[in-house]
Amino acid sequence: MIYLDNAATTYPKPEKVYEIMDRTNRNCAFNTGRGSYKIARELNNLIENTRDKIVNLVYGDCHNVVFTPSVTIAINQIINGLEAVNSKNDAVVYVSPYEHNAVARTLALLKDKRESINRGLIIRELPINPETLEIDLDKVKYDFAMEPPTLICCNHISNVTGYILPVQSIFEYGTEYGSINILDASQSLGLVNVITDRANSHFINADFIAFAGHKSLYGPFGAAGFITNNKYKLAPYIAGGTGSNSLNLNMPEEITVGQEPGSHNIVAIAGLNAALDNIERNTIEDVYEYEKELTDKLIDGLKKNRNIKLYLPENMYNHISIVSFNVKGYKADEVGRILDEDFDIALRTGYHCAPYIHKWLHSEEYAGTVRASIGRYTTEEDIESLIEALEEL
Amino acid sequence: MIYLDNAATTYPKPEKVYEIMDRTNRNCAFNTGRGSYKIARELNNLIENTRDKIVNLVYGDCHNVVFTPSVTIAINQIINGLEAVNSKNDAVVYVSPYEHNAVARTLALLKDKRESINRGLIIRELPINPETLEIDLDKVKYDFAMEPPTLICCNHISNVTGYILPVQSIFEYGTEYGSINILDASQSLGLVNVITDRANSHFINADFIAFAGHKSLYGPFGAAGFITNNKYKLAPYIAGGTGSNSLNLNMPEEITVGQEPGSHNIVAIAGLNAALDNIERNTIEDVYEYEKELTDKLIDGLKKNRNIKLYLPENMYNHISIVSFNVKGYKADEVGRILDEDFDIALRTGYHCAPYIHKWLHSEEYAGTVRASIGRYTTEEDIESLIEALEEL
Repeated sequence: MIYLDNAATTYPKPEKVYEIMDRTNRNCAFNTGRGSYKIARELNNLIENTRDKIVNLVYGDCHNVVFTPSVTIAINQIINGLEAVNSKNDAVVYVSPYEHNAVARTLALLKDKRESINRGLIIRELPINPETLEIDLDKVKYDFAMEPPTLICCNHISNVTGYILPVQSIFEYGTEYGSINILDASQSLGLVNVITDRANSHFINADFIAFAGHKSLYGPFGAAGFITNNKYKLAPYIAGGTGSNSLNLNMPEEITVGQEPGSHNIVAIAGLNAALDNIERNTIEDVYEYEKELTDKLIDGLKKNRNIKLYLPENMYNHISIVSFNVKGYKADEVGRILDEDFDIALRTGYHCAPYIHKWLHSEEYAGTVRASIGRYTTEEDIESLIEALEEL
Repeated sequence: MIYLDNAATTYPKPEKVYEIMDRTNRNCAFNTGRGSYKIARELNNLIENTRDKIVNLVYGDCHNVVFTPSVTIAINQIINGLEAVNSKNDAVVYVSPYEHNAVARTLALLKDKRESINRGLIIRELPINPETLEIDLDKVKYDFAMEPPTLICCNHISNVTGYILPVQSIFEYGTEYGSINILDASQSLGLVNVITDRANSHFINADFIAFAGHKSLYGPFGAAGFITNNKYKLAPYIAGGTGSNSLNLNMPEEITVGQEPGSHNIVAIAGLNAALDNIERNTIEDVYEYEKELTDKLIDGLKKNRNIKLYLPENMYNHISIVSFNVKGYKADEVGRILDEDFDIALRTGYHCAPYIHKWLHSEEYAGTVRASIGRYTTEEDIESLIEALEEL
C-alpha cells in the first residue's frame, strides 16, 4: 500500500516507538501517581521527561505541557477553561477559515450554551483573499481595530490545503488588543519550527499550543495535549481523580494536575517520548526540506495533468506536505475509491473536518477534495505512483 | 514484583492483548472513518465488533456503546450531557458514599457552574449504616420519598473497600421517581454480572454504564466508554471532528458519532477487543469465584494479625477483590513504602480518589488506607507473601 494519508495520522512510526510501546505494555503499564510503588513512581519521571522534550522542542523554558488523550480534548479543555470566553461579558473570537472542527464545533457549542443563558460569543473568520487563498493580513489589522479580539484560534498548517498560516503576524496583531492566542499545531509541531522563546525573532506569541502526538510528531494515538505559557489560568472542564488531594471536591489548581484527571495512558506517553527522540530542533529543517521537495514534485506532476484542479495558496513558500485536488468529472470519493482499489494508494477524500474553508475552495461540487499528505517516510516512488495513477484515470 | 494493584489497573493483560496491540500499531494504526481506503474502513468493523462484544457481555440487545479515551471522560460526557441536570430546573442528584472523584468532582464542578448562573444542583449522599459500612436500603427508600432523585450515580464495586453496592435495589427504588441511573462499573464489568436485559431477574436498571477497559476488562489504557439504553439523549460535551457531516458546525445527533469526536484510538480498541475474547458471560462466575477465594484467604490472614485494622462491609457476600486496611502505628503510605522496598509488593495507599467514604472509615488518622487489590492473575503465593510481610512489620 502506498500511504499518503499522513495528515490523518503519520504512518509508519519510528521502529523505536513500536518497541517501547510493546515493552511498556508488557512490563510497566501501571497507573502512575503518588501513594504507590517504585515502578509506578518512576513512570512519573517518564511523563515529566516527555514534557521536557516537548518544552525543549518549542524553546519554551517557561512553559508547561499538559497531556490529554487527544488534541480534540486539549482544544475543548482550553476553550472551555478560559475565563475570558466563559464569563458574563461578551467575547469576540477570531478563527482562521482553515480551522478544524475541533476548534469550530467547540466554539459553536460554547456559543450555543452561552446564548441559552443570554451571554454572547461573537465568532468571526479571519479574512482571506479569495484569489490567493491566503490570510489578508492588512484586512486582519483593520478587522481587529474595528472589533478587537478576545481570543484568536488559528491553525498553523491547514489540514486541507497544506497552507502555512502567518500565525506570527496574526498573533502579533491580536496581542496589541490583548487577545489570547491559541495555536492548533496538530499538523505542524515537529515539521516546522514553533518557537515560544520571546527573544527569538521567529517567536510565535501563542498562549496555548495544541498538539497531536500521532501526527507530525510520529507518536501514537492517545498522547496529545497542549503547551501553555501560563499567562492565562484554565478552569477545569473535565473533572476526575488526580491521585492527589483526593478528599477535596475541587480539581487541584496546579496546571498539569488540574488538567489531567484520570489515569495517564502511560503506554502512549512512552511511545510519544520515543518519537520525540527522533525530532530535534536542529533536524526539523532537514525533514521539512525533504517533505517540501516531495510536495513540490507532486504539485509539478499534478499541474501537468489537465484534468486536475489544485487547491493551493498562491505563495508556495507558505505550503508544505498536504495537497488537495479534484479530478474533473469525478466526485472526490470516487477518485479515492479508484486509487485505493485499482492502485493501492491510500489517501483521504471529503471535507477533512474543516467546515469553513470549502466555501472559498468551491469544492462542494466535488463533495470535498482528494487529499494526498506526505510524511517523513514517503518516497519519490510513492509520489510518482500517484501522479501516474491519476494520469490513467 | 508481587502485583496487588489491580484496582488501579489490571496487570498483566492476556498475552493476546499485547500481541494484537503491537500488530495493530505496526500494520494498521490508521485513522478510521469515511472517505478513506479499504483498511481504514475495515477498522470501523473492528470498532463495531468491539461494541457488539460489550453489548453482548451485558445482555444489552437494545443498547449502544460509546467509546471514550477514559472512564473519567465517559462520566464527564454523561453527567454534563444530560438535559435533566443541565436545564433551568433544579435537580437532585444522589451519589453513593463510595463514589470516585470521576463522579464526585464532576458533579461538584457542575454544581459550581450552575450556581454561578443561579441554578440549583442538590447533591445528596445515599445513606449508609456506619457500623456495617453498607447502604441502608430502608433509609434510601425514605430519602427518595422525601426528596425524589433526578439522577442517581452509583459505584458498582467500591475501589476502596471492595464492597459490592446493592445497585439493583437502589436503581429500582429511584426508577419509581423517574430517576436517571448511572452505574460506574469501572471495577465490576467483566468481574460480576452486569445485566441490562429487562427480562432477567438480575436486571440492573442502569441508563448509563460507564466502563474502564484497562481495569476488570483486562484491556489497555485508552479504551473506555459507556453503554446506554438510549432512554435519555446526551447533548455533546466535547466537540470536534467526526469524519461526517463536516460542514455542519453542530455535532451529529447520532449517539455514537456525536459522542466520539476526534480520531479513535484504534490500537487501544483493538487491545480491548482482544481482551473481551477472554471474558464470556458464562466464565465471569469462574473468575469471580477464583478472586473471591483469594480475597477471603487474604482477609482471613489479615484478621489473624492483631495490628491490622480492616475496612470491610459487614456482609462478606457483598465483597470482592479489593481489601483496604491499616497497620496500627503506621501511616498508610509508610506501610506501602516498606512493602515495596523490603518485600517487593506493589499496592496502593492513600485516599484512592474517593472523597466521601473516608469520613465513615475514619481512615484520616492513617492518611488513607493501604489497598491490596486482587486480579485474575493473582496467586495464592502472592496473598501469602503479603500476609507474611505484614506479620514481620
